[in-house]
Amino acid sequence: MLTPVLARIDADLDQATARLLDLLRIPSISTDPAYKPDCDRAADWLVEDLRSLGAEASKRPTPGHPMVVGHIGAGKPHLMFYGHYDVQPVDPLELWHNDPFDPQVQDTAHGKVIRGRGSSDDKGQLMTFVEACRAWIATHGQLPARISFFFEGEEESGSPSLIPFMQDNASELQADIALICDTGLFDAETPAITTMLRGLLGEEIIITGPDKDLHSGMYGGAAINPIRVLARIIASLHDDAGRITLPGFYDGVPELGNALRAQWENLHFDARAFLGDVGLTTPAGEAGRTPLEMLWSRPTCEVNGISGGYAGDGFKTVLPSRASAKISFRLVGTQDPLKIRETFRAHVRALLPPDCTVAFKDHGAGPAGHMSIDNPAFEKARKALSDEWPRPAAYVGCGGSIPIAGYFKTYLGLDAMLIGFGKDDDLIHSPNEKYDLRSFHKGIRSWARILAALSEQ
Amino acid sequence: MLTPVLARIDADLDQATARLLDLLRIPSISTDPAYKPDCDRAADWLVEDLRSLGAEASKRPTPGHPMVVGHIGAGKPHLMFYGHYDVQPVDPLELWHNDPFDPQVQDTAHGKVIRGRGSSDDKGQLMTFVEACRAWIATHGQLPARISFFFEGEEESGSPSLIPFMQDNASELQADIALICDTGLFDAETPAITTMLRGLLGEEIIITGPDKDLHSGMYGGAAINPIRVLARIIASLHDDAGRITLPGFYDGVPELGNALRAQWENLHFDARAFLGDVGLTTPAGEAGRTPLEMLWSRPTCEVNGISGGYAGDGFKTVLPSRASAKISFRLVGTQDPLKIRETFRAHVRALLPPDCTVAFKDHGAGPAGHMSIDNPAFEKARKALSDEWPRPAAYVGCGGSIPIAGYFKTYLGLDAMLIGFGKDDDLIHSPNEKYDLRSFHKGIRSWARILAALSEQ
Repeated sequence: MLTPVLARIDADLDQATARLLDLLRIPSISTDPAYKPDCDRAADWLVEDLRSLGAEASKRPTPGHPMVVGHIGAGKPHLMFYGHYDVQPVDPLELWHNDPFDPQVQDTAHGKVIRGRGSSDDKGQLMTFVEACRAWIATHGQLPARISFFFEGEEESGSPSLIPFMQDNASELQADIALICDTGLFDAETPAITTMLRGLLGEEIIITGPDKDLHSGMYGGAAINPIRVLARIIASLHDDAGRITLPGFYDGVPELGNALRAQWENLHFDARAFLGDVGLTTPAGEAGRTPLEMLWSRPTCEVNGISGGYAGDGFKTVLPSRASAKISFRLVGTQDPLKIRETFRAHVRALLPPDCTVAFKDHGAGPAGHMSIDNPAFEKARKALSDEWPRPAAYVGCGGSIPIAGYFKTYLGLDAMLIGFGKDDDLIHSPNEKYDLRSFHKGIRSWARILAALSEQ
Repeated sequence: MLTPVLARIDADLDQATARLLDLLRIPSISTDPAYKPDCDRAADWLVEDLRSLGAEASKRPTPGHPMVVGHIGAGKPHLMFYGHYDVQPVDPLELWHNDPFDPQVQDTAHGKVIRGRGSSDDKGQLMTFVEACRAWIATHGQLPARISFFFEGEEESGSPSLIPFMQDNASELQADIALICDTGLFDAETPAITTMLRGLLGEEIIITGPDKDLHSGMYGGAAINPIRVLARIIASLHDDAGRITLPGFYDGVPELGNALRAQWENLHFDARAFLGDVGLTTPAGEAGRTPLEMLWSRPTCEVNGISGGYAGDGFKTVLPSRASAKISFRLVGTQDPLKIRETFRAHVRALLPPDCTVAFKDHGAGPAGHMSIDNPAFEKARKALSDEWPRPAAYVGCGGSIPIAGYFKTYLGLDAMLIGFGKDDDLIHSPNEKYDLRSFHKGIRSWARILAALSEQ
């Protein structure tokens, strides 16, 4: 069944690329109200494209940008595919070498690339799945499984309508498993299924000491300085081994299983190159942990911003009234973000000297996502990916926080597989975003293989 | 000799006030080039006023605003009087209740005040001395000593011309002792001679980790965070008892002598009120030190500003490339600012983890000023002040750094006595600056007494 589908994909690549370029020409920037009609147009384009496959598809209004939902085929399994059609803004425009919405196929030293905003994040990735379905239908007149498509237009602007839409349409959005194409390869040769996503707790603390800014000569020595208090609090959050000191913080942080540890070792992650790209040489996390653990399976506490007193040119001998910091925790395993928030706040309060007060701002709390790979679909997909790419596919972690997988689990009860073909050098969210033509081509072939693998009962 | 001079001062107070108001009407804001002609005009006004006393006075050009130098009288001792005729800017103008350069004598719940920019800092204080001289001359036809006047027009803008002018005119500026009127009373009842001024060392440190801002999810855990490094450095600068940890930092920090300690205890400094005014209750300096020691005779290390990462509204999961802080040390005794700078920089470098670099910016270094009260002029002046005011005069410290006294010593070899009549609530540098009419009146009388006391051989 599969071989002619793959042949069809190869033969149709130029047309598939042309369709993607067509979609990329629509400037569907979701965060900017000026582009609302374009977001709508991108949704219409997708509805039309799904209908051209024979799907029953429609644009579904939300208080924000519309969702696109489509269904096609019958039987088991029922696969739900998610992608997003909205894109990031393009500023600074002057750094682009071509119009971000006049996409081009370009030759580079590393092969052909599709250049343009959204090429990798996420229109190109979204279309790998659609094109795989198109090739199946063109070859066999039908798909090997029942497929639902679920495309969002607000992923780059915080997905405000997503959860309400899932809740309101929970029965229509039922399936056996969700497939999400918004992640990357492990490296150019090694495909990946992302099974661990770190959670995120964001906190802001504002320490107030004196009720006004003071002269550091007239008051210094007798008046408490909130910057010093803040620095002590921040310094107290890690011990000398890089571990976070909050009591109970590591509750729910699992050790890697042997199988996963072996697989990760087998990836031969090049920490030297990863850090070297940003001017660093030395992994800075917990003593005794590998770089991949630091990035994927260990929690962190970072200071994302700090301010207080005078930060302009020159010098001002001010003893400031206030100092503040934005602090985030990346969470893993079953760490409880709300419990950690309380522990963190209690820790900060306990370190306050007399006369200092603290205000906290909540900047969100989401637990880590752990995909259970017990579902046999994971091993089937991993084998299918391994057949397509030079090196075997790996289960990997992701240091960032992609909430969509958790939402499928929480609101629809669905396991989700995160599979994607982006590369670290795709410049997503930056000027000159690109998607390797090879990622697009082998991405389509990968989904064709996965459809075949998952539909083998 | 003195009694008729004091009577003359009392009788002439309205005219003296009118002369001060006239000087206050000249907007001699030295930092703003738009007011350069006004600074010039203020200098001319003073030259004319000194000439009206019979002094040989002239306006002396500098690359900035002019100095005013005058000489009058003969014999011993030769007293050099310093004040400054320039004033601070008046922003925010909307917070003033009257035009800052249309000065008024106003009744308040605490007595009459002269309201206007420069009334306390420093035109009103400067004129206390000039008016005392005028009363002596009006009463006795001459002064009891040789007097030189030295008025600066750049004190509020960093005094760029002062040291070169002292060096170029060192022989003309010789005298037996300098009198400086730019400080305050200890409290409304207690006059003060400021004999200890803290020095100041200003440093800025910029810590760089990664060579660009990173995503805290993608890199957090493996990449070093310069805000965390900076916080650790700042936290390391004090121990739990509030002492500064730099090696050798306390070299040259003297303990208070018994006499001074007894005098300070006798001041019954109201730390509760001092701190209460700024919303604090608890002296925050070194354990085991009195609040006045913390403010006057102990060194400090303060963070005057800190910045790094994202400090705007909301949250950004950035792991920043850089973080920086402005840090100042107030110094006492014979602490060596250049040696402490080197110790501080070595301490910072020693705390840098791999991959972090630091850049330092020098924001000035000046040692503490300690007036030796061995010169008998100090006890004479203290007695004269004690005769004028309800409570005995005290030798006090000043937490801030007034470099002028040190310059007289360094560049002219002169001891300097800092005597002034400002009050903490004078709102210098702020909207609605005022000078108590009582400060002005008793200030003039105080200088008349000091002139008498110093000229008794």
